Amino acid sequence: MKVGIVGASGYSGEVLVKLLLGHPRVTLAAVTSRTHAGKPLAAVIPAVRGADRGLTFSDSDPAALAAGDLDLFFLALPHGAAATYAKALVAGGKRVIDLSADFRIADLATYQKYYGEHHAPALLPSARFVLPELTSSAWKQEAKLVAAPGCYPTSILVPLVPLLKAGVITRDHIVVNSYSGVSGAGKKAEETYLFCERAESIKAYGLVKHRHLAEVEEQLALHTGARTVIQFNPHLAPMRRGIATTITAPAAAGASIESLYAAWRGAYAGRPFVQLLASGETPDTAHTVDTNRVDMSAVHDPRTGNFVITAAEDNLMKGASGQAVQIMNLWCGFEETAGLA
Amino acid sequence: MKVGIVGASGYSGEVLVKLLLGHPRVTLAAVTSRTHAGKPLAAVIPAVRGADRGLTFSDSDPAALAAGDLDLFFLALPHGAAATYAKALVAGGKRVIDLSADFRIADLATYQKYYGEHHAPALLPSARFVLPELTSSAWKQEAKLVAAPGCYPTSILVPLVPLLKAGVITRDHIVVNSYSGVSGAGKKAEETYLFCERAESIKAYGLVKHRHLAEVEEQLALHTGARTVIQFNPHLAPMRRGIATTITAPAAAGASIESLYAAWRGAYAGRPFVQLLASGETPDTAHTVDTNRVDMSAVHDPRTGNFVITAAEDNLMKGASGQAVQIMNLWCGFEETAGLA
Amino acid sequence: MKVGIVGASGYSGEVLVKLLLGHPRVTLAAVTSRTHAGKPLAAVIPAVRGADRGLTFSDSDPAALAAGDLDLFFLALPHGAAATYAKALVAGGKRVIDLSADFRIADLATYQKYYGEHHAPALLPSARFVLPELTSSAWKQEAKLVAAPGCYPTSILVPLVPLLKAGVITRDHIVVNSYSGVSGAGKKAEETYLFCERAESIKAYGLVKHRHLAEVEEQLALHTGARTVIQFNPHLAPMRRGIATTITAPAAAGASIESLYAAWRGAYAGRPFVQLLASGETPDTAHTVDTNRVDMSAVHDPRTGNFVITAAEDNLMKGASGQAVQIMNLWCGFEETAGLA
Amino acid sequence: MKVGIVGASGYSGEVLVKLLLGHPRVTLAAVTSRTHAGKPLAAVIPAVRGADRGLTFSDSDPAALAAGDLDLFFLALPHGAAATYAKALVAGGKRVIDLSADFRIADLATYQKYYGEHHAPALLPSARFVLPELTSSAWKQEAKLVAAPGCYPTSILVPLVPLLKAGVITRDHIVVNSYSGVSGAGKKAEETYLFCERAESIKAYGLVKHRHLAEVEEQLALHTGARTVIQFNPHLAPMRRGIATTITAPAAAGASIESLYAAWRGAYAGRPFVQLLASGETPDTAHTVDTNRVDMSAVHDPRTGNFVITAAEDNLMKGASGQAVQIMNLWCGFEETAGLA
Repeated sequence: MKVGIVGASGYSGEVLVKLLLGHPRVTLAAVTSRTHAGKPLAAVIPAVRGADRGLTFSDSDPAALAAGDLDLFFLALPHGAAATYAKALVAGGKRVIDLSADFRIADLATYQKYYGEHHAPALLPSARFVLPELTSSAWKQEAKLVAAPGCYPTSILVPLVPLLKAGVITRDHIVVNSYSGVSGAGKKAEETYLFCERAESIKAYGLVKHRHLAEVEEQLALHTGARTVIQFNPHLAPMRRGIATTITAPAAAGASIESLYAAWRGAYAGRPFVQLLASGETPDTAHTVDTNRVDMSAVHDPRTGNFVITAAEDNLMKGASGQAVQIMNLWCGFEETAGLA
Repeated sequence: MKVGIVGASGYSGEVLVKLLLGHPRVTLAAVTSRTHAGKPLAAVIPAVRGADRGLTFSDSDPAALAAGDLDLFFLALPHGAAATYAKALVAGGKRVIDLSADFRIADLATYQKYYGEHHAPALLPSARFVLPELTSSAWKQEAKLVAAPGCYPTSILVPLVPLLKAGVITRDHIVVNSYSGVSGAGKKAEETYLFCERAESIKAYGLVKHRHLAEVEEQLALHTGARTVIQFNPHLAPMRRGIATTITAPAAAGASIESLYAAWRGAYAGRPFVQLLASGETPDTAHTVDTNRVDMSAVHDPRTGNFVITAAEDNLMKGASGQAVQIMNLWCGFEETAGLA
Repeated sequence: MKVGIVGASGYSGEVLVKLLLGHPRVTLAAVTSRTHAGKPLAAVIPAVRGADRGLTFSDSDPAALAAGDLDLFFLALPHGAAATYAKALVAGGKRVIDLSADFRIADLATYQKYYGEHHAPALLPSARFVLPELTSSAWKQEAKLVAAPGCYPTSILVPLVPLLKAGVITRDHIVVNSYSGVSGAGKKAEETYLFCERAESIKAYGLVKHRHLAEVEEQLALHTGARTVIQFNPHLAPMRRGIATTITAPAAAGASIESLYAAWRGAYAGRPFVQLLASGETPDTAHTVDTNRVDMSAVHDPRTGNFVITAAEDNLMKGASGQAVQIMNLWCGFEETAGLA
Repeated sequence: MKVGIVGASGYSGEVLVKLLLGHPRVTLAAVTSRTHAGKPLAAVIPAVRGADRGLTFSDSDPAALAAGDLDLFFLALPHGAAATYAKALVAGGKRVIDLSADFRIADLATYQKYYGEHHAPALLPSARFVLPELTSSAWKQEAKLVAAPGCYPTSILVPLVPLLKAGVITRDHIVVNSYSGVSGAGKKAEETYLFCERAESIKAYGLVKHRHLAEVEEQLALHTGARTVIQFNPHLAPMRRGIATTITAPAAAGASIESLYAAWRGAYAGRPFVQLLASGETPDTAHTVDTNRVDMSAVHDPRTGNFVITAAEDNLMKGASGQAVQIMNLWCGFEETAGLA
């Protein structure tokens, strides 16, 4: 099976390149970039020197890609741009896994509120948001286009959804603080992302209106059948990769740390990419880097009546490219962990 | 005026050394360390090479220090050890500013619950916990011994106390997430603090029972007249210095972002070491490093009804040694900012 | 084929664990550690959570290991300790790849001068130092025990040997400056390796008598037939992994940058793990992390008559564990890149 | 005395702002920036919040600055731009300390070769390159305009000049490797200086033709009376501030480590900003950050006959702004260390 990456020169594009070059079941056959068309892959991504199988960046022409012989495309593009490619590629019968936000929000009005104009609204009904451990498996047959979840949302939804479904926590007063490595901002040549600005620095940003809220709250509502409003406080941390999410949620009446872990085990037993740590241990982003895992744990605080839930992931793996490959594996009938462990 | 530092070889000791060597009103006349007695100051703290005025580490003998001609001592020792020195020095008529936890908690039972045995309980009545911007000024006459606040508590109390006193936020569902640079753990040769373990890593620790809770909640009760239980989630961040604290607190009925800022301005107008940022701006630990400031701001979230409050400080300055020097300045009648700006 | 790792809890042990768990031709069947015996692998190396196939650390008993059914052992132990294991395992008919210095130096007197007593001198004749791109292939038949090269030496020998053999550079006035990530020091709980000491810090250490000199100069002599004395200046850099080596070497009479690259191409054409960058480009350690490559380039300085040669590698991969796996691949007849790309 | 900073928004400008706000003998009365004109100082440099004495960025109009009542200006501008300001300000009778390269090179042809067109060649005769510990004191009377040395050159000239003058080392085969923190590149929004590109990365750059060579070699020739060609290999290190320079230089016949240190002591005894470490100790950039020092040491290698010399400094202090303030102090008759310790 031949696959391609549209927009392969950013940070998630680079991780996709590495994963797909080493994948046992697919051949990376095209990498595109408007900026780098014509350059050898390794000239732009030196990490794959000697392992790039002679690939060269091609131009990102949607029509040409749609007419070619590749079977599946990953879109690692800014939101807005992705929709245009998705339209052409889906029309050409290609499978598309989109890493942008363009098809993560089923509700068009919500999308427009957070992101502005949508460039392919007609595709929304055939698109599926897929967080493999949470989304029920019908998507494998129904989807023409899969939206891979955002980095923050993955680290929030994986711990929260089973707990809300099981009624272990209340829906009110959920507070989420997330700390992301700088790669989460993409490869943007802006002052704020310079080494000298970010090293030895931690700060909140995007308070009370971060775009990922739209995705998190829509998913929480879809999974649990009720509107759920959360406080989401994102921060930048002085590291390249990783997201650490700490969630405070009031325990429901009668809920114990045992019932919390039971809900998690019910949802995730046997799933390779969700690892439960014992209560009292806390996950560390460094332990998840270059893996496709969410590590998580929880503790009950008898003084406040809250559970404190901690989750860690690699924002470029389970938070982006690793999860996109996991989606491909499931969609195409490969082993779920192929190329990911 | 001659001052000394007992236990000058740790991270807060080192910052004290630098501050006091450059202070216009006092002379650093003694630095002690059991481990380094006999060594030149600059051999242990190379950052002061050429500026250490020939100081040599002396042994840390409480009786000898109490009998000498120094006027004031800073104790930069582990909790437990500090009490022993405080006893001898106060008995000798010296002023003592303690950077440990030994005299931060007025309630002996609470101290014992969090820290174990207290080695100088008889001194507690003459000790004062002083966070200069919050503690009413009677301490300057009353205190024989001042407890400088902890690093996390400073970043929590400075934003919270005026808001609770003004009734701008509710007392329930306050959630505090703090991220500390690694120097907060002290200069401990343990695997967990190695460069390779902490670089590129973020993780929660000490969940639901961190010792600083005792201090925060006692102070909140003393200042606001009512028991206040908070959720406090501390984390380690991959940087040397700095604490970023993000607090979610439900707005009281009728409270607005304007009333929140009004409460802060009422408490801190003209205070050089508390800087208010406009709502929407967020403080950055990097901007506070090497300063004695707390920078803070808040935003109201109409969706959740919460205020999200962000504060940043240098854990070794306003969170430890800078604040201790500020206390000395006020206690001795120097300009509050002497040696600190 | 079943393989084991003796001393799997350090930094090179951890990388070996990851490589061997993912290796297509061998089964990691034993991991040993005196400190951690009895603990699950993932409890000590959380990066392999969910992928550790239930492995548990066993005690490091040489006799028991020698009597077992494993075919090959990697020794990731301090020098001195490795020799003892090697003796037992070789006697038991096992293949042994040693990552310590114990068998890197053929000359016993030199070993003793730099490292002290040797605990298995009788094994030296059957041991082979193998840097796969440089060592002629007879070792595959002759060796009972292979010494994997040191991290610094790999980054020095790969660029230098072909140039000295081809007479492109002179033997005099060779100056080598190397900058290593902190993991090069091993997982040692010492103050000097704490995050707060090493972050934002660069310094030389071990000047003029670093142990790796013994290995580098012995190999240079063996490969080129003449004693070669180099200036070697190692440094610690504020990063976890990577070695950047910059070599200044006077051009031999008549040598040009073209003849230098010709010598390199003659030695390394088709070798996947040595990548030549164009003159004027310089390698970056970050691009080699998690790969088994040495990236290198050179430039001629007409003002000084020197070549300036730059090389980069991952000290834990090509500088340690990756190269050890490469050696296993070649020794056992696997594809050279198996499990490494 | 009133001073101003032209171009105060870059990294060296920011350090100048902090130093001058705290300086006991001068008043910072103007900060200019074309980009930030009209903004409060603390809006651009948040590190001085609450301590910026109400200063606002003004436009950078040379004529207006020349006509005003300030006595001395620091130019923290790119080369090329500085010359234009220097012309106007010197014509207006102002003292000027230029941190750019524009007046560092006395020889116009050399300047043009490395930097292109010079915009104020007529000023060169009245400009003085001043490295305070090396330049003989006549400059204080002669200069109308002082060029502060570059960051790399300071770390090279301070150790080398006394040794060449004393004949302790030979003039041939001097090899200099320098490692600079990322702030050395200035506050440039380019991909290569992003946090994710530079963290955990070390690489050489600008090999064999770095602009600072012109300055180093001109100074070596002026001080020692003979042309001296060195190999200079600059590198980027993953830290914000600091330069570590390691120099290999063949010992002259009869020279010993004692004679080397004697030469250094002869040149620098009593100078506060040059600190000699014992042979065998090596300087660490972290110990010099926020100080105006060069720390240095040397060791003799009997195997190679070389001295290995190591020097460390803060590139923004002794390598730029601290040295500029030191120059002002000497020029204006203040204590040399005023505002610097």
